Amino acid sequence: MSLTLDTARTVISGARAKGREAGLKPLTVVVLDAGGHVVAVEREDGASNKRFEIAFGKAHGALSLGMGSRALMERAEQQPYFIAAVTNAVGGSLVPVPGGVLVKDAEGALLGAVGITGDTSDNDELAAVSGIEGAGLVAQPGA
Amino acid sequence: MSLTLDTARTVISGARAKGREAGLKPLTVVVLDAGGHVVAVEREDGASNKRFEIAFGKAHGALSLGMGSRALMERAEQQPYFIAAVTNAVGGSLVPVPGGVLVKDAEGALLGAVGITGDTSDNDELAAVSGIEGAGLVAQPGA
Amino acid sequence: MSLTLDTARTVISGARAKGREAGLKPLTVVVLDAGGHVVAVEREDGASNKRFEIAFGKAHGALSLGMGSRALMERAEQQPYFIAAVTNAVGGSLVPVPGGVLVKDAEGALLGAVGITGDTSDNDELAAVSGIEGAGLVAQPGA
Amino acid sequence: MSLTLDTARTVISGARAKGREAGLKPLTVVVLDAGGHVVAVEREDGASNKRFEIAFGKAHGALSLGMGSRALMERAEQQPYFIAAVTNAVGGSLVPVPGGVLVKDAEGALLGAVGITGDTSDNDELAAVSGIEGAGLVAQPGA
Repeated sequence: MSLTLDTARTVISGARAKGREAGLKPLTVVVLDAGGHVVAVEREDGASNKRFEIAFGKAHGALSLGMGSRALMERAEQQPYFIAAVTNAVGGSLVPVPGGVLVKDAEGALLGAVGITGDTSDNDELAAVSGIEGAGLVAQPGA
Repeated sequence: MSLTLDTARTVISGARAKGREAGLKPLTVVVLDAGGHVVAVEREDGASNKRFEIAFGKAHGALSLGMGSRALMERAEQQPYFIAAVTNAVGGSLVPVPGGVLVKDAEGALLGAVGITGDTSDNDELAAVSGIEGAGLVAQPGA
Repeated sequence: MSLTLDTARTVISGARAKGREAGLKPLTVVVLDAGGHVVAVEREDGASNKRFEIAFGKAHGALSLGMGSRALMERAEQQPYFIAAVTNAVGGSLVPVPGGVLVKDAEGALLGAVGITGDTSDNDELAAVSGIEGAGLVAQPGA
Repeated sequence: MSLTLDTARTVISGARAKGREAGLKPLTVVVLDAGGHVVAVEREDGASNKRFEIAFGKAHGALSLGMGSRALMERAEQQPYFIAAVTNAVGGSLVPVPGGVLVKDAEGALLGAVGITGDTSDNDELAAVSGIEGAGLVAQPGA
């Protein structure tokens, strides 16, 4: 596992604090390791049923193609059939809107990804970046 | 189960009565609890084979994202690739047209959702709202 | 649709009455038409989340092979790999224990199937047969 | 959501403390609400890739049938084809060994479920029960 549970919890804590500070709707935060596997999740009270699946899809999509999910959205705007095809090819879960952010260390090594859903996609991304940077790591929300 | 079977049957009975009164085509009515699980279903004579699956998808989609399926349609108009991706991420059943309506109590607590298909989407939604309100509950057809 | 909604509701009502009379646990009753499509469902309060899916699988399995699900259990005891393979081949839902009962008319014409889950498989079948016969129809629980 | 995120975090914290105290291997702890949806997850450092999926399957299976996963194991020993069929019918995730424990309140109302994997199934269950009881709730590991 390239990202420890303690780090994941720090990222989640920071992202949720940012959400509260900015008055966002209930957030669901998923942290995956570099292999795309779940390390930690928290779904805030009042979030709807499938928010884990959506947040997972943002982070999983980001890791699948090696770019933040904002870049996936840009590609989806240009070539929706490409994103649909890749979603299928990678086994299903890829949500191409902002809020799926790669996590790297200071040297640029990939550690994992964070996916957030609950408010607007832009705000979801804001909370993710805040959580990652608060843990002393580098956030890559786009290409 | 956050919504009793008796309540579900009252909602179905009211929705079907509205359909008859308004001269609608044969309706299929699905009631889910807050967790997205089937409580009761009735498919009227003459409805086509897969109407259960369509009505289920409207209600299941509404609960998955925490908004009536009319709001899902608006999102699908703006970002079709987002709705396609979420459909995939939540395991497949999400029908983004009106007729999937959240059911809440007077305090705003989520009890479940109703999905109806058979006539136009607008009329399907009309019947759902009528059935929910006739049971003394609050209907949320959109965002 | 080979079995009307009114008939389906009569079957469900009779099966649930039998359950109450015999002191069974909360039942979930699914009625399918001859094509294997949902006509009506009721899940009693206190039944667990996936009881619709299990009851559906009993009835759907019975219609898939043209025999009550008690006969599917006998086959599963003898050749588990056959039932596993057929489940896959028919697209997924086939639950080979008693409680999936074919519904026929007096001339032997197939009208649909009933699936029940909630108590022991034997009691589930008892309630299904009672509901079918109470509607003036013929129940086929096995081969 | 029938179980708050704060409660879920308390359960996870207690289960992990029990694991450390008893010298167990790295645990993965999943908490689901009564509808079977993810509330919180923590996977300890050193746990293998798919531990989230396994822990989820224990808790999801328990909620699907309304009994702790130890009871699912007993059923699997008696009728392996039944558990295989139900796994398929409920959409795939049902792991029938101990470690999936229902969470109830003092009045017996179902709040959700905990799934743990990492050590022996018996020890996984021990940690789950400890976490649930430490949060002042009632654990149901079996039928």
